[in-house]
Amino acid sequence: MTPEKLALTTNSRARKPRSDGTPDNPLAAELTRTLGHKKVLHHLSERLNYRYDAIQFGVTPLAVVLPESTADVVAAVKAAKAAGVPIVGRGAASGLSGGVTPLQESLVISFTRMTGLHIFPERREAVAQPGVVTLKVTEAAKPHGLMYPPDPASFRTSTIGGNLGENAGGPMCFKYGVTGDYVRALEFVDVDGDVHRLTRDCYDLAGLLIGSEGTLGLITEATLRLIPPPKFTRTLMSHFAEVGQAAEAVSSAIAAGAVPSKLEFMDRACVGAVEDYLHLGLPRDADAVLLVDTDGDDAEIVAAELELVAQACAAAGGTVRRAANDAEADALWRARRSISPSLGRIRPQRMNEDIVVPRSALPDVVREIRALGDASPFHLVQFGHIGDGNLHPNIMFDPRTEDTHAVHDLAHKIALVAIRHGGVLSGEHGIGTMKRDFMRDAVDPVTLNVLRDVKRALDPANGLNPGKILPDLLMDER
Amino acid sequence: MTPEKLALTTNSRARKPRSDGTPDNPLAAELTRTLGHKKVLHHLSERLNYRYDAIQFGVTPLAVVLPESTADVVAAVKAAKAAGVPIVGRGAASGLSGGVTPLQESLVISFTRMTGLHIFPERREAVAQPGVVTLKVTEAAKPHGLMYPPDPASFRTSTIGGNLGENAGGPMCFKYGVTGDYVRALEFVDVDGDVHRLTRDCYDLAGLLIGSEGTLGLITEATLRLIPPPKFTRTLMSHFAEVGQAAEAVSSAIAAGAVPSKLEFMDRACVGAVEDYLHLGLPRDADAVLLVDTDGDDAEIVAAELELVAQACAAAGGTVRRAANDAEADALWRARRSISPSLGRIRPQRMNEDIVVPRSALPDVVREIRALGDASPFHLVQFGHIGDGNLHPNIMFDPRTEDTHAVHDLAHKIALVAIRHGGVLSGEHGIGTMKRDFMRDAVDPVTLNVLRDVKRALDPANGLNPGKILPDLLMDER
Repeated sequence: MTPEKLALTTNSRARKPRSDGTPDNPLAAELTRTLGHKKVLHHLSERLNYRYDAIQFGVTPLAVVLPESTADVVAAVKAAKAAGVPIVGRGAASGLSGGVTPLQESLVISFTRMTGLHIFPERREAVAQPGVVTLKVTEAAKPHGLMYPPDPASFRTSTIGGNLGENAGGPMCFKYGVTGDYVRALEFVDVDGDVHRLTRDCYDLAGLLIGSEGTLGLITEATLRLIPPPKFTRTLMSHFAEVGQAAEAVSSAIAAGAVPSKLEFMDRACVGAVEDYLHLGLPRDADAVLLVDTDGDDAEIVAAELELVAQACAAAGGTVRRAANDAEADALWRARRSISPSLGRIRPQRMNEDIVVPRSALPDVVREIRALGDASPFHLVQFGHIGDGNLHPNIMFDPRTEDTHAVHDLAHKIALVAIRHGGVLSGEHGIGTMKRDFMRDAVDPVTLNVLRDVKRALDPANGLNPGKILPDLLMDER
Repeated sequence: MTPEKLALTTNSRARKPRSDGTPDNPLAAELTRTLGHKKVLHHLSERLNYRYDAIQFGVTPLAVVLPESTADVVAAVKAAKAAGVPIVGRGAASGLSGGVTPLQESLVISFTRMTGLHIFPERREAVAQPGVVTLKVTEAAKPHGLMYPPDPASFRTSTIGGNLGENAGGPMCFKYGVTGDYVRALEFVDVDGDVHRLTRDCYDLAGLLIGSEGTLGLITEATLRLIPPPKFTRTLMSHFAEVGQAAEAVSSAIAAGAVPSKLEFMDRACVGAVEDYLHLGLPRDADAVLLVDTDGDDAEIVAAELELVAQACAAAGGTVRRAANDAEADALWRARRSISPSLGRIRPQRMNEDIVVPRSALPDVVREIRALGDASPFHLVQFGHIGDGNLHPNIMFDPRTEDTHAVHDLAHKIALVAIRHGGVLSGEHGIGTMKRDFMRDAVDPVTLNVLRDVKRALDPANGLNPGKILPDLLMDER
């Protein structure tokens, strides 16, 4: 897959609808017959919106189904299978790896209308359909004294289905774990249209589906574990003259016994971008900024844990600023949450890496990636969930004027830095198309073959989100 | 699979060794040639020891390999494949579901000599070979202020490899999670003898292997997550005149916000068995006993959390006894840890169920299972990790004098009670052979077919622990 293949494409098979409003491609016509007009989009102007995620364009789908029930999903899957058209499941499309961009003429199943959500306080569980917006789960659980911890930066727009597809993380995942850690049971529709209900038994098929980006099945319901929220939270920001100091502070704070609930890192370029956008008074001259939360049910312990972090930051040469109250803490976290919109102002497009490396390798990795950025013609920023060693180097570019091959090459070099330091390609965004070619570097050929065998076991005809994760295979390339 | 098939069997292909000590079956001879005499057992008297786990007999293996490295495992797997002999991986064989009992003439690979263990305090990780005894991980981590939480009752003898194979839990799993929750990376050898190294990426092949009982691959190394141990622990015991009261106490304590680190249940028959054995002064006349730990880093909060539980127990009609110190707490927990040896004194064999049901269903489930026991000719005891709804109804029997078909039927009825109440077959012991036939009740046929497809993707010739988990398939029955 070369980058230009991902450029904006309209397609050939789906011509304009007839003047009477009935779709003229057979799949759209069949779906409209089965599901009714309200659940099927077939006008080009409507379909165009379903060709991209938050950072990447794909191929305009042949038709879009907006199911309202598992039965609708089954009907859509059967129709697509009968028509020999691949299926791409889609949540809020806020993903950052191309997971939901169709790579060929496809049926997109967009889950935004499947928003059923029920809280079972006694079982400490939420049962959610895939279209439920992530934040809604915690909002619904809150009156029962419960919360749903996974908190991707996009949690105000992203959906549970998308989070499951990419096994999304977030700032809280260092202490509380990622999406998959909260899944008790799943319902999914397979490529034949059969419905399965899974618990986390052997074989852990549910675990296999989580993070599989809709390539093995379409999740139509999830039973999610809820926890009581911590009673107290404290926040600090620390800035450093050199990026290695920040990484040292993180390592020594954790070695001293601190388990921060959030532990975020921004490099100088990232701080500059946020500051240009919001003018929050961030330390522009710092080489690295850490944002840290500690939380728990005992105010003194939470404060003491924050002091452990503060001491580690100071010992590593950092300047520490503690939030005096919730409003100050919110202001500090606003900086972190605003990274994505801030970067959008620099260049219209970005390649967002998602590497994870051992914490001990962080100083070297951050420096090597910065050197790669400096040697390139591109604006490169780094930030991420540094407690987990999860870094997001972002390459900013304008596809109209800049060489997308060079972007791809730089991203590849960054991936190779991570792999050389014992890291992996993705912490929380998934592989999608963006890191798909790098899988050959990260996974040895025999293991890649086993992954292909697993894919084939669940989707023999490669009808589910073809071309994602594994470095080959559109639907017709089997 | 009917129970009598599991009875003690010697086999035909493996005749007595020749008088010069060289094995006379071709596989044992080949293995001895490749790996040397010290790593291969071929005498019948040696092989006999490898036909059973903690509760079940199987077929005596053709040969046993005791590998000392991943390379030895590769050599053994390749030799078995070339000979067309199935492979059964084995840890300490303390399992309770028949996971390691060979069902046909096999090569047993016993991992007890692969005991490499390295602690990486800065990464909070342990890298363990499969033969490491579970408790050793925490013992090695302790000097670094770390622990490994999964604590199956057998953790003084069970191995990491066996724990991974069955995704073992333990009393601490209510608060801290099961074995799979602590796995960061795995190395495994596939059925062709290829070595794979996996992180918890997509597809989560590592998660698929965990709990798969050696039917998909042989785990040769695991990178395990360690955590700082809680600074304080408090313990109480409560006994109840009626089993439903205990279940109510559990539900209301958890609803009140308590997250006990351990929450164990024993019924009257179980208490009686332990008391007959150890004379600890347990309340023999109680219908149900709860044993509860709370833990954390703040002594006051840990005590307050214990009080929440104590109040819930008292409100439900229980009598509460708090442990005044660690010695008293140890004495109380000794009762729980002694259940297995206590039961061994009643009858020589037992069928140990491992159902998990919603906590709200516990009173009904416990009563229904007791009624089934009372209506049967067998001695039945119940205990388990009630916080998770994980119950272990045990049917005690003597296979020489009692009808093993009737034992199997009773176990089946118990499984059906769990399924009817929305439960699952196994919380921590695995499916093995014991609950294999019940998979048809628990998993619908189309999903069972998908599980078969997954098995086939990784082990097309069914050479890895055939006959386990899925309700069919010995190696020659494909």
